[in-house]
Amino acid sequence: MADSSTGLTFDLINAARERLAGKVSVTPVMSSETLSERAGAQLYFKCENLQKGGAFKARGATNAVFALSQTQAQRGVATHSSGNHGAALARAAQLRGIPAYVVMPTNTARAKSDAVRRFGAEITWCEATQADRERAVADVIAATGATLVHPYNDLAVMAGQGTAAVEFLSQVPQLEVILCPVGGGGLLAGTAVAAYSLKEGLRVIGVEPAGADDAARSLRAGRIVAGTSPETLADGLRATVGALPFAEIRRRVEDIITVTDEAIVAAMRQLWSVMKLVVEPSGAVPYAPFLTREHGIRGAHLGIILTGGNLDLDRLPWALKPARE
Amino acid sequence: MADSSTGLTFDLINAARERLAGKVSVTPVMSSETLSERAGAQLYFKCENLQKGGAFKARGATNAVFALSQTQAQRGVATHSSGNHGAALARAAQLRGIPAYVVMPTNTARAKSDAVRRFGAEITWCEATQADRERAVADVIAATGATLVHPYNDLAVMAGQGTAAVEFLSQVPQLEVILCPVGGGGLLAGTAVAAYSLKEGLRVIGVEPAGADDAARSLRAGRIVAGTSPETLADGLRATVGALPFAEIRRRVEDIITVTDEAIVAAMRQLWSVMKLVVEPSGAVPYAPFLTREHGIRGAHLGIILTGGNLDLDRLPWALKPARE
Repeated sequence: MADSSTGLTFDLINAARERLAGKVSVTPVMSSETLSERAGAQLYFKCENLQKGGAFKARGATNAVFALSQTQAQRGVATHSSGNHGAALARAAQLRGIPAYVVMPTNTARAKSDAVRRFGAEITWCEATQADRERAVADVIAATGATLVHPYNDLAVMAGQGTAAVEFLSQVPQLEVILCPVGGGGLLAGTAVAAYSLKEGLRVIGVEPAGADDAARSLRAGRIVAGTSPETLADGLRATVGALPFAEIRRRVEDIITVTDEAIVAAMRQLWSVMKLVVEPSGAVPYAPFLTREHGIRGAHLGIILTGGNLDLDRLPWALKPARE
Repeated sequence: MADSSTGLTFDLINAARERLAGKVSVTPVMSSETLSERAGAQLYFKCENLQKGGAFKARGATNAVFALSQTQAQRGVATHSSGNHGAALARAAQLRGIPAYVVMPTNTARAKSDAVRRFGAEITWCEATQADRERAVADVIAATGATLVHPYNDLAVMAGQGTAAVEFLSQVPQLEVILCPVGGGGLLAGTAVAAYSLKEGLRVIGVEPAGADDAARSLRAGRIVAGTSPETLADGLRATVGALPFAEIRRRVEDIITVTDEAIVAAMRQLWSVMKLVVEPSGAVPYAPFLTREHGIRGAHLGIILTGGNLDLDRLPWALKPARE
């Protein structure tokens, strides 16, 4: 395994690319004249909502699972996750034929817990706090000997997430900026290291819900600032930025901007109605700045990672009330 | 223009392909292991919901508009449409810089009338009957001198729709069957002629809502049987099959099968939740037979044309009540 004292390297990302070949999808890049016109720049959408399991998380989890030694692997893997990482780990473990244990907060979207169960993982429920998640996963590991695959504070996971940017740049070499959402920071860190290594001057910008802006505040402070209790419907982005991702983010990321939940819902709706793509709230976050031309992001060729498409179709955020109780 | 007494030829479809180059999209083909596994066959989805204007109708309408002489074209084009053809004609007319007049029934989905208006066409409202549609468009033509571009009973339109199958087969040469929905029959006729000309033994099957099954009954009867008042939420498929499409359907189509509205809604929901694609009810119709393995459609490689993705996101059919009044 990688020496964590050296941080995330492009070699780790390249090794992940080789390991992932045939196990995750090369996702398509789509564009819309309508949305590009509206934003005043050519927008390219990397469709990780079309990834295996419906989210980019397949990349990091699969890389981590297949990087384990045979001895480690046979005792299984464990994690805590609001959903997409849990499902991705469950799928990767099933692919390798080893057990997976997933700790999920009780407010997890139903579509996400269903996916975890479908891939044969064992679910343990916990409260929706960082402390309770970590306690519950520690209990599971003590009982099973499973290896923790943290959703973001893990170099193998970060390296796997970085493969999306490598692919994106090979599909759209003219990219000047890549935008991605920030939760725990794994995707943003992987993207930043890949971009820095592959193309001089390629900028990486994080986009975070205003109600869970710990990464933006941390970047300004130059150190991790503890998150207040997150308040956003972007359920994939409520986690606090991790130490390993933050080390890369601090060095390589140009900026982290924040968007309101109102903008996130409007962005999601535009992606559905114009692009015909089902994108979850967290996945729509990096498009949210582009609802107007006053987004302030320089460049003619802007890349946006649409990170996932898993959500309860009975509880769409633009319905005033849930259609069913 | 083509001599209509000869019917639809592959030459007309080829001419349409050349005419459409750069004006409509080459849409992607997608697959899902989950859905293929469920159906017990490899399913390939031709994503015409990702076509310009969100529906395959761009093909036929654009071909018809650009096939007009300069003299005809300058007086504009007119049609009646429950929506997607109207928007497609409006877009094609805008592309050629000529006026478009669209007659729409008052029960048209809001998303569809908005699209027509956005492309600069003039809308005339009518009752939702075939007779009233035809009367209203005749009035418009009398007043303007515009050329009628019928949504399906028109060789240039049928030829344009046939280009989807040509593309599909070039993307997936191993196709054994192509399934597409039937409303007025333009797509089915174009698909059938293209398939017959391109690959021996390639079968074409139409899928129709049980509540608007005039084409299925007509195929069995060997002549056009007048439709009863259509009752289906697949709003794009309420039209009665046209004489020109029916002549091709009768010669070349293996079968037209019917599906319930309940199956259409379930199919649509699966496409959204598993494939992450926004598909409208009419567009989900050809997938509806595959909800179980007992679909009775032979072949290991089955192609499905997902025809469109335009619908009101506030009125999804699986909500018990509309989210907003």
